[in-house]
Amino acid sequence: MSSLTLDAAEEIVAAVLQRAQSIGKAVSVAVVDAGGFVISVRRSDGARPLTPDIARAKAYTAAVMQRPGKMLKKWQESQPVFFSQLSQLPGAALPIMATEGSVTIKKDGEIIGGLGVAGGTADEDQQVADDVLASLGYELEFAAWGVAGKPLGKDA
Amino acid sequence: MSSLTLDAAEEIVAAVLQRAQSIGKAVSVAVVDAGGFVISVRRSDGARPLTPDIARAKAYTAAVMQRPGKMLKKWQESQPVFFSQLSQLPGAALPIMATEGSVTIKKDGEIIGGLGVAGGTADEDQQVADDVLASLGYELEFAAWGVAGKPLGKDA
Amino acid sequence: MSSLTLDAAEEIVAAVLQRAQSIGKAVSVAVVDAGGFVISVRRSDGARPLTPDIARAKAYTAAVMQRPGKMLKKWQESQPVFFSQLSQLPGAALPIMATEGSVTIKKDGEIIGGLGVAGGTADEDQQVADDVLASLGYELEFAAWGVAGKPLGKDA
Amino acid sequence: MSSLTLDAAEEIVAAVLQRAQSIGKAVSVAVVDAGGFVISVRRSDGARPLTPDIARAKAYTAAVMQRPGKMLKKWQESQPVFFSQLSQLPGAALPIMATEGSVTIKKDGEIIGGLGVAGGTADEDQQVADDVLASLGYELEFAAWGVAGKPLGKDA
Repeated sequence: MSSLTLDAAEEIVAAVLQRAQSIGKAVSVAVVDAGGFVISVRRSDGARPLTPDIARAKAYTAAVMQRPGKMLKKWQESQPVFFSQLSQLPGAALPIMATEGSVTIKKDGEIIGGLGVAGGTADEDQQVADDVLASLGYELEFAAWGVAGKPLGKDA
Repeated sequence: MSSLTLDAAEEIVAAVLQRAQSIGKAVSVAVVDAGGFVISVRRSDGARPLTPDIARAKAYTAAVMQRPGKMLKKWQESQPVFFSQLSQLPGAALPIMATEGSVTIKKDGEIIGGLGVAGGTADEDQQVADDVLASLGYELEFAAWGVAGKPLGKDA
Repeated sequence: MSSLTLDAAEEIVAAVLQRAQSIGKAVSVAVVDAGGFVISVRRSDGARPLTPDIARAKAYTAAVMQRPGKMLKKWQESQPVFFSQLSQLPGAALPIMATEGSVTIKKDGEIIGGLGVAGGTADEDQQVADDVLASLGYELEFAAWGVAGKPLGKDA
Repeated sequence: MSSLTLDAAEEIVAAVLQRAQSIGKAVSVAVVDAGGFVISVRRSDGARPLTPDIARAKAYTAAVMQRPGKMLKKWQESQPVFFSQLSQLPGAALPIMATEGSVTIKKDGEIIGGLGVAGGTADEDQQVADDVLASLGYELEFAAWGVAGKPLGKDA
């Protein structure tokens, strides 16, 4: 298993901030390792005080759920109480967020971390994260969780 | 009161892992005693990091609610706020999960523990748990909770 | 970075239970991965209800602090309030325990998980964990944390 | 009130990482604003998983207590229970840490944020933080908290 270095994380963070600036948005960005622990967090001038923590929870979600947060939406919609209980499990350090701007960092078929972006619209957060990871050679394809409403299938 | 030994729990865990493997799913499995305390937890290679905790919460639910988690679904649907408050009670150590893959372990009419399976689809988790308990001679019949909105009836 | 498989974790767990039985102690044992997430937990017949969770927290500590729990004792003694605050950090899922029976799992110089044993005396828990890891070819040497009372030194 | 920009925070972070590297330590560093909210967090390769959160709590402490963490040590020693209760107050987001490596960021007599460093020895963390802030023109003089046991005096 390979791991994500600070240099690699910084390359992602810098690209996210530049990309967000190019569309005129002040965002926060976070990169965590495969276990969900922080490597780098940054808040742009003008981004709201809690956005770094939102970005971190999005990154955490993408890392430990091993899927981008938006892939968890159907699960959350079909089982809202159960989904919210995930965040209360003893092993869960942060809220599990089924939302845009939360993308798993994958290279050579292996999950090595998570990226979270917060501060733009949902679509902007997602687009920035996807564009940056694609441009840096990370993989954005993830197998589905099985059929809708049955999200616990393991078929990565 | 008879109790669930580690050997008996291990027999269940091994059967669950074998059964899950036969359908190509990487699951986590947990067995708890009648008080909801862990006897055995296992995570298959490839199952996600939080799945052992999901399996454990399912097992906990089945043990302390004395009914399989899926039998709690109507209750959760009819009284979602009240239901979610169960998990916040002082004696509740883990989330009460109204979901598949959560089965009460019963023998000779007596509740002796809970089994949780997570990592397959909801139906797969349930099927694996039911099949394993049935094949090992545990009882899978549980009296209904009575009418909706009156879920606390004790008629096991 | 290599990772700890379920088979490797089970080999450790089985050896711990056998070793504990040979000294007449009913223990609980937990093995977690490098990020602190559960791979395997087991409670022997006769071990107390919370011992599996104690074993898990010990394993978690050894994994995420990257040192055996007993190496944290001086730190805890010299800075008890600060030490207890570690367990309240947003990224900490479980209590950080400065105690015996908490050993980091290291192979080829790399930290790949944590082992926790609970239920014997402190010395027994430690001895069982050390003996088992040594007998299975894991490394038990860890660089000191610098001088006493200055435990944050990184010199692994 | 002037505020700490991301550029200014990054200048501090980069200087801390360079300074720590020059003494051979892998540290984590955090900079927060006057309200204690994250601007930037970074974990060096080799620093332990929880060190970014320790650095953040140190930065938080220095910002919202408006004094370096080590100036709080006497208070903590003389009133340990009361001091630990600070961290449980409704407005306290993170543990208040009376320790080295936690320095208030002050310019033109105004408190504009907090810096936290974790991963070296206590003295190293403090030295790195002090050196960096001094070299970048920040002020390191803070009025005492008055006599022991009367720590709430505001005389910055």
